[in-house]
Amino acid sequence: MNEYAKINDIKIVYQLEGEEVMEQKGLHVAVVGATGAVGQQMIQTLEKRNFPIAKLSLLSSERSAGKKVMFKGEEIEVQAAKPESFEGVHIALFSAGGAVSKQLAPEAVKRGAIVVDNTSAFRMDENVPLVVPEVNEADLHWHKGIIANPNCSTIQMVVALEPIRQAFGLKRVIVSTYQAVSGAGAQAVEELKTQTARMLNGEEVTPEILPVKSDRKHYPIAFNAIPQIDKFQDNGFTFEEMKMINETKKIMHMPELEVAATCVRIPVMTGHSESVYIEIEKEGVGVDELKSLLKEAPGVVLQDDPSEQLYPMPLYATGENDVFVGRIRKDLDRDTAFHLWIVSDNLLKGAAWNSVQIAESLLKLGFVKA
Amino acid sequence: MNEYAKINDIKIVYQLEGEEVMEQKGLHVAVVGATGAVGQQMIQTLEKRNFPIAKLSLLSSERSAGKKVMFKGEEIEVQAAKPESFEGVHIALFSAGGAVSKQLAPEAVKRGAIVVDNTSAFRMDENVPLVVPEVNEADLHWHKGIIANPNCSTIQMVVALEPIRQAFGLKRVIVSTYQAVSGAGAQAVEELKTQTARMLNGEEVTPEILPVKSDRKHYPIAFNAIPQIDKFQDNGFTFEEMKMINETKKIMHMPELEVAATCVRIPVMTGHSESVYIEIEKEGVGVDELKSLLKEAPGVVLQDDPSEQLYPMPLYATGENDVFVGRIRKDLDRDTAFHLWIVSDNLLKGAAWNSVQIAESLLKLGFVKA
Repeated sequence: MNEYAKINDIKIVYQLEGEEVMEQKGLHVAVVGATGAVGQQMIQTLEKRNFPIAKLSLLSSERSAGKKVMFKGEEIEVQAAKPESFEGVHIALFSAGGAVSKQLAPEAVKRGAIVVDNTSAFRMDENVPLVVPEVNEADLHWHKGIIANPNCSTIQMVVALEPIRQAFGLKRVIVSTYQAVSGAGAQAVEELKTQTARMLNGEEVTPEILPVKSDRKHYPIAFNAIPQIDKFQDNGFTFEEMKMINETKKIMHMPELEVAATCVRIPVMTGHSESVYIEIEKEGVGVDELKSLLKEAPGVVLQDDPSEQLYPMPLYATGENDVFVGRIRKDLDRDTAFHLWIVSDNLLKGAAWNSVQIAESLLKLGFVKA
Repeated sequence: MNEYAKINDIKIVYQLEGEEVMEQKGLHVAVVGATGAVGQQMIQTLEKRNFPIAKLSLLSSERSAGKKVMFKGEEIEVQAAKPESFEGVHIALFSAGGAVSKQLAPEAVKRGAIVVDNTSAFRMDENVPLVVPEVNEADLHWHKGIIANPNCSTIQMVVALEPIRQAFGLKRVIVSTYQAVSGAGAQAVEELKTQTARMLNGEEVTPEILPVKSDRKHYPIAFNAIPQIDKFQDNGFTFEEMKMINETKKIMHMPELEVAATCVRIPVMTGHSESVYIEIEKEGVGVDELKSLLKEAPGVVLQDDPSEQLYPMPLYATGENDVFVGRIRKDLDRDTAFHLWIVSDNLLKGAAWNSVQIAESLLKLGFVKA
């Protein structure tokens, strides 16, 4: 907790809803989308990390307002998010969909908050840094109030690829994903559970959520694989695939990097897996060099020992903040090509933990002051 | 059924176990491994295709002998396989594991049978053709009694790639698989079902079969993805991955083809899916040309219309003989590179149907005579 040393000197004055003015040490943090799958993980992560919070505002849609959520042993009532909700807020973590972010993030910034936005609303905005702290924490220096949290499937990949890029150069990435249902929200997880139980009982299923709730057709995810995540673009790629392609280039500051993605949903609740092919610049690099590098890389846990059947799996990555990498092999035909298997909890490093980590970086770098 | 015209002239004389000599039109076919997941599909496929069978011998291990299996409305008792079981057999379909094939396939050949072997025992033997009829039916001409049926994940891929190779040349293949549990046998499917039910009820699970029954460690497959199919080789690739690499080159007669594979088991009962990246020789080929080509390709069903959310999925490929191809996209950086999503029933085209199809080719080409 050394990085929080400076927070002890911060004194914050804020006004409770309609009550007297209080003075207390710590920050006023808001979580927008507090009742969603990612919002819940954000709240738990803030608690686990002992983030220096003086006040926590839990915000949501009108529909979810009034619900109670536990934080550090206290019940907090969820409020409907409105522009005024951000008065006095230092850091606002948004995860309530792109439309909400587009409407309310500027309102939060106007009121002095720094927004860490987990939606795709601002990710490709050239005025908004897109940050994975292990990769490009320095981009926080040019933020203008909003910082975008990348797409879950992008984050875990760049955490594993950045140390390789730094050491050996990176030319090309081809990724096929095995994405968990929780990436589509809590409703989708319920659909997976219900469908699975019904199929095991030989009953009919009526898919309503996946692959994309707002799209026209829905397919069963139980005992199936659906090669569609988010809607299709005119070029035949899905938005999810284009997010991985474009966000990777932006985060790594490599517009010239060749990236291709095929994104697939599988019947896993939590934990995205990725089969990643890369080509590096440097010739003659051995698998052991790559392993040594990743063993020491920030945010990465190397799980790679075929003789012990050790490799990453989503079931075991669930609840962990790290990015797990294994199955590292040199391509049998090309000296500068490698294959990796990258797994991480899509709700944590892919969303909540990366957002809280950005908030921690903002503190460390002195961007948040009372 | 025109291709069977010539079979009508075949008269077969064979002896029923200890009974009088009978004369009847049709072939004596043996299925070895008759009680297994693939064996069952072989029997059903022989029936569905109305394969010209005069006698069907169902063979198995001592353990499964005595079981009764239905074929064309009649109950057939499964016998323990032994060398003498193949007396008078014209075609023997083997799917009882590599050890059984190594021991009994030569015995069957010695007795005049042609063996179609669905195990990996003889696949890379240079004296044994490895056949996918849509791709290399002509290799049947040099068979010496044993014909190998390729690995399930290889078959569906080469069916989709062969027409592309013929039209535009093929230089490179990188595949990531999403493989169904039935590829590991009926016991593995039971494990998936039981584990899934227990996990939904919040109960503990004790994996015993997957990823590889005879390997030391076992992991849950329910709501998980396991990046290990078959055991590991010293080079860090699994045997399954090396099968895809080596068999693809052999079937396509392209030792120079660059192939890389990452094989992953997912909680799907039946139907393997594959995310496949290819590089072709010809420049300037459009996605529409690739689609038109695959639309007409033998054994292939094109399912590719993003505007209708049409793409292949394993749940819908189950029970079908075809190979379904969709999500065809040109790489965004390279003119000669494409991405495809290939799905097929691993027990049918991946095993039973391809074996029966080889038997049909043997008939058509006149290799089987009474």
